[in-house]
Amino acid sequence: MKFNTTELNEVKRGKKKAFYDEKTIYSILDSTAICHIAFNHNGKAFVQPINFGRTGNRLYIHGSHQNRMTNAIIEAKEVCLNVMVLDAMKLSRSAFHHSVNYRSAMVFGSVKELTKSQDKLLGLKSIINHFVPTRWEHCRNPNEKELKATRVIEITIESASAKIADTPPTDNEKDTIVDYWVGTIPVKTVYGDPIPGKCMDSTIGVPEHISAFVERKNNTG
Amino acid sequence: MKFNTTELNEVKRGKKKAFYDEKTIYSILDSTAICHIAFNHNGKAFVQPINFGRTGNRLYIHGSHQNRMTNAIIEAKEVCLNVMVLDAMKLSRSAFHHSVNYRSAMVFGSVKELTKSQDKLLGLKSIINHFVPTRWEHCRNPNEKELKATRVIEITIESASAKIADTPPTDNEKDTIVDYWVGTIPVKTVYGDPIPGKCMDSTIGVPEHISAFVERKNNTG
Repeated sequence: MKFNTTELNEVKRGKKKAFYDEKTIYSILDSTAICHIAFNHNGKAFVQPINFGRTGNRLYIHGSHQNRMTNAIIEAKEVCLNVMVLDAMKLSRSAFHHSVNYRSAMVFGSVKELTKSQDKLLGLKSIINHFVPTRWEHCRNPNEKELKATRVIEITIESASAKIADTPPTDNEKDTIVDYWVGTIPVKTVYGDPIPGKCMDSTIGVPEHISAFVERKNNTG
Repeated sequence: MKFNTTELNEVKRGKKKAFYDEKTIYSILDSTAICHIAFNHNGKAFVQPINFGRTGNRLYIHGSHQNRMTNAIIEAKEVCLNVMVLDAMKLSRSAFHHSVNYRSAMVFGSVKELTKSQDKLLGLKSIINHFVPTRWEHCRNPNEKELKATRVIEITIESASAKIADTPPTDNEKDTIVDYWVGTIPVKTVYGDPIPGKCMDSTIGVPEHISAFVERKNNTG
């Protein structure tokens, strides 16, 4: 499925880098635990990083009831968020052409606060299993007291776009005779060996869902 | 120097993680090439990733004259931006206590478009040397045509805060008897070996300013 291009999500600059299909956009969203959320507070635009989950075309975030970001997007009933993954730094002969390879996903969604315990649990499950797949099945799930202390927000993706740059550095033709170094510095997020916490039964090794997660992240980025 | 805490920059949740001193905030800003900028467009809050430079208490970004983000923040005369570095994923026995170690810097700044060529050049120098130190001295600097095509914006940091989490995973006392794995997965941004671009004099090796940058990034994060 492709998102329709509208004034909201259409990529204006670098149209060749633009993607509007769910598969591309979801794969970027799934590649990282953190998104950046925009919100209005007293008429000013703010941005805040937060972790999130995705289940189909729904994203989930959570926070405390005092949080001004969650208050603001619930009130606005809509939200814009971005996920950005840096893949490479591109150094050209000219300052002008320096740039980066990256994958960026812009999401425009409608916002709904979940209030029923069963809905909140599904939202939190989405967040925890986005963090580390199947982790929800390998931890103690929230009790009623924890659920009450947590605000869970569902964002339905109404519109979205991705922008992907994955090209070598460029230069103007007449700069190619200039003897400055031109090239690419790859950038990668690497997940280290899991470090067991203290106060744990020493017979418990690193479970398969965690070792598999680390291995897959390091292999696919 | 410390930034005063006001309604704007005071960290409400996790006060123990809050820092207001320039040194801490600047070190987070300097640890990455990309920030996320919030802006208002037709009364809605948007967020966009962009690379930036820092010189003292001034940040610099650039863009085209058609860009709605640059138009919006010039009009608003102020901006909020965030830099977030993920350092570790923390897995607890309870879903509720899952979290991350991170370094986040929030900046609230006043916005000024630079119009004089000499000022724009200083802004672009800041961006390029933030990208890779001394790169400005190792590339062809912008000509008048390129300067005209580029909008350069100076953001003076008026207020800021940082939030740093760097602790082991926690659990409720009564969960410590539960046999779920608890621990930390370190996360690190790694810079690969520079890949020389094509169409370059094959006698040019990787210059010292680039190899030193990669080595330092990989050693200090």
